[in-house]
Amino acid sequence: MAKEKKFVEQITSMEEDFAQWYTDVVRKAGLVDYSSVRGCMVHLPYGYAIWENIQKELDRRFKETGVENVYMPLFIPESLLQKEKDHVEGFAPEAAWVTLGGSEPLQEKLCVRPTSETLFCDLYSKIVQSHRDLPKLFNQWCSVVRWERTTRPYLRSMEFLWQEGHTAHATGEEAQERTIQMLNVYADFCEQVLAIPMIKGQKTDKEKFAGANATYTIEALMHDGKALQSGTSHNFGDGFAKAFGIQYTDKDNQLQYVHQTSWGMSTRIIGAIIMVHGDNSGLVLPPRIAPVQVMVIPIAQHKAGVLEKAEELRRELEKICRVKMDASDKGPGFKFAEQEMRGIPLRVEIGPKDLENGTVTIVRRDTREKLLVPFSELCEEVAKQLEKMQGDMLARATAHRDAHISEARTYEEFLDCANNKPGFIKAMWCGDEACEIKIKEETTVTSRCMPFEQEQLSDVCVCCGRPAKKLVYWGKAY
Amino acid sequence: MAKEKKFVEQITSMEEDFAQWYTDVVRKAGLVDYSSVRGCMVHLPYGYAIWENIQKELDRRFKETGVENVYMPLFIPESLLQKEKDHVEGFAPEAAWVTLGGSEPLQEKLCVRPTSETLFCDLYSKIVQSHRDLPKLFNQWCSVVRWERTTRPYLRSMEFLWQEGHTAHATGEEAQERTIQMLNVYADFCEQVLAIPMIKGQKTDKEKFAGANATYTIEALMHDGKALQSGTSHNFGDGFAKAFGIQYTDKDNQLQYVHQTSWGMSTRIIGAIIMVHGDNSGLVLPPRIAPVQVMVIPIAQHKAGVLEKAEELRRELEKICRVKMDASDKGPGFKFAEQEMRGIPLRVEIGPKDLENGTVTIVRRDTREKLLVPFSELCEEVAKQLEKMQGDMLARATAHRDAHISEARTYEEFLDCANNKPGFIKAMWCGDEACEIKIKEETTVTSRCMPFEQEQLSDVCVCCGRPAKKLVYWGKAY
Repeated sequence: MAKEKKFVEQITSMEEDFAQWYTDVVRKAGLVDYSSVRGCMVHLPYGYAIWENIQKELDRRFKETGVENVYMPLFIPESLLQKEKDHVEGFAPEAAWVTLGGSEPLQEKLCVRPTSETLFCDLYSKIVQSHRDLPKLFNQWCSVVRWERTTRPYLRSMEFLWQEGHTAHATGEEAQERTIQMLNVYADFCEQVLAIPMIKGQKTDKEKFAGANATYTIEALMHDGKALQSGTSHNFGDGFAKAFGIQYTDKDNQLQYVHQTSWGMSTRIIGAIIMVHGDNSGLVLPPRIAPVQVMVIPIAQHKAGVLEKAEELRRELEKICRVKMDASDKGPGFKFAEQEMRGIPLRVEIGPKDLENGTVTIVRRDTREKLLVPFSELCEEVAKQLEKMQGDMLARATAHRDAHISEARTYEEFLDCANNKPGFIKAMWCGDEACEIKIKEETTVTSRCMPFEQEQLSDVCVCCGRPAKKLVYWGKAY
Repeated sequence: MAKEKKFVEQITSMEEDFAQWYTDVVRKAGLVDYSSVRGCMVHLPYGYAIWENIQKELDRRFKETGVENVYMPLFIPESLLQKEKDHVEGFAPEAAWVTLGGSEPLQEKLCVRPTSETLFCDLYSKIVQSHRDLPKLFNQWCSVVRWERTTRPYLRSMEFLWQEGHTAHATGEEAQERTIQMLNVYADFCEQVLAIPMIKGQKTDKEKFAGANATYTIEALMHDGKALQSGTSHNFGDGFAKAFGIQYTDKDNQLQYVHQTSWGMSTRIIGAIIMVHGDNSGLVLPPRIAPVQVMVIPIAQHKAGVLEKAEELRRELEKICRVKMDASDKGPGFKFAEQEMRGIPLRVEIGPKDLENGTVTIVRRDTREKLLVPFSELCEEVAKQLEKMQGDMLARATAHRDAHISEARTYEEFLDCANNKPGFIKAMWCGDEACEIKIKEETTVTSRCMPFEQEQLSDVCVCCGRPAKKLVYWGKAY
């Protein structure tokens, strides 16, 4: 039993030290490992399986909207990166540069892609000629590199996995429509599959993507009251098109510039899953994304018939869900702790008494609720509980989020919220970047977004008192 | 019609110039585009969709053998790459080096992974402690970079997509078993899905992977009689384990080194699909790998009812295969040429006469065979023809391969084969690298493999006349 207790005790409680709790969960659940490469993480099988499920779900949703997958080069020649002024200013400071090929110095150094707008623009300038070639709706799954100083698993790393969609359209209206469409794909995916409610809105100019006309974002609230930007969608207008010369002939045979968008979601979202749903026993995975949805654990498995029945039930369950059985030689307590640490939604316990009674015990990971179920009803009940848990997790996350939204009408109120009330702060803003800078300097709070659902909380900016232009969600953020 | 003819005429015939035919097909079928990055290609949607199908099929087969996916860092610190002597000698000359991060010179330069043995060894040295931790059966899908001088789409490029499996085992026997198991997975996949027959065998020491004890390969024969190495599987023994200190305690509590394997297949295999099955009208895709299996083409689509019926049939077909309809405003001849160029296995033509007769015409891409089929039997017939075409393609490729295997018992015969008989040459070898080098210098022919199915063609080496040790398949290769 000493061994079993040790396994659980190794996690710091989230109330004591949330950052340490996060690191503990990430490691003990077997999601990632540190590598010998500074700032790069190893995605271990269990963590990578979550990413594969995210990919499968998102990819299907992208393709339903007409998106096609491609793969672009890993490297960007320096001259290509420099073509759009704002973009290069945004990304050059955090670029990794290849300067040697074989043992020869390169004539032009190559940037390891931090994002691929420039490569897609280069391609579109070659393959788009006529209005018949539009729209182009391309996406790629890849890794990108940003030279970060401090790193944390999933949240900030030198290399991370993501998808980046890049589209080109005939008109600005179409580009804007696609920008919002993909933001909605992200938000729906997060709510329906990850059980994480999102606030949708537009970034302020200060926070927008380098080179974009407008950046839209979905923002989630973590258990500790900090915000996490979970996906972004950018409308570039025709700025990149002009810089890269991407033109098409319209129906009247006139040359026109295309209008472009890009949108991305990364492995960062796994950090959100952990910090929204996890508890002091470890990870809690929403059933729809869990690599293993049910763990069958035989009790006193040396007793006659137990293992056979457990295997029979596993085979039954395999038809309706992702199930595994832990028939290792560890004790049941250890197995329970491990299943809980890994956030597997349901545990099915079966021992000698169950054999006699023709029942099994189902235990829900999130509520610890126990259900005694006859063999014959196991599949039906498991399917029902997985659905129920998915819904309950979204409801709980939404309730937590909503309970952590404060409103501030004066700067005093704002400071009180920033210091004493973890969560989002709703407050009016005049539109001046100076107020964002002042607030950030004095409170570390940043503007998260101007929500699509605007309200008029007051008539004046919470910071400077001048006339208010926009309601903004503010928050401390990862 | 001028436009239509142009589309077809743009391909060089394969008899005239096979290399140019290949390049033409790759471009005109919309598989890849060149990029502004030297030696890197853009994988366009149609080419990438073939790769996605390959990934899906291979990934499923890997997982059925217990393999788990992970993702390792893109970069390898120089000191890590240098830990295994043969390995670094093999790969350092073609490495791309990152020497700048942000604007700061790095203390230690980072290699962009050319392959990831060193990273997996580094990980295994940390996570393998006990025999209970073994085997480790990891795989990753990623891109790798090798600084090549000359490049050709799919066949040789600076960056390419692949999977690399890396396993660690308690015993040498287990490692050897896994090495052969994965080679068989590759060979079965190529035969069953890609309709390409493979010769399985072991590489000579000269041709084996840098750092391996033994390399096994599957070799295919292209239409022009050249060989293509299509997948390799390596047994490392405990060489890497000793260099990286990967040890475990066995059941008797003794420290032991692990035994390792690695195995990879890349986008190169798409080059094989093109060069084995293609013809002078373009690509011919085996149905099981084709992104689009059936193209419905309405004839005289402005005539009443044609488009509606075509769409109705498309919806029917959608239930049993991957189908698209070309209802664009191009002429039927152009549409046919395009469907043929892209190698779509079946074409379903439907026009006003078909409407009257209640029939459609199915045309097979490989044989051009036409079938008149009643509406009611379309799905059944399409399913049947896709299966038949898959089988016929493998049979044709096998017959072509077998018709291009020569035997040489003397060096004179060998020279005659090398100069006049495109294809594999079966000949005995003494085991001395000097003979391989002489043959390569004088004929450009290399040893492809020592096949698992050995024969004793003669008692002496085809090159030097000393006693023969092995039957070798020789050939000019891509």
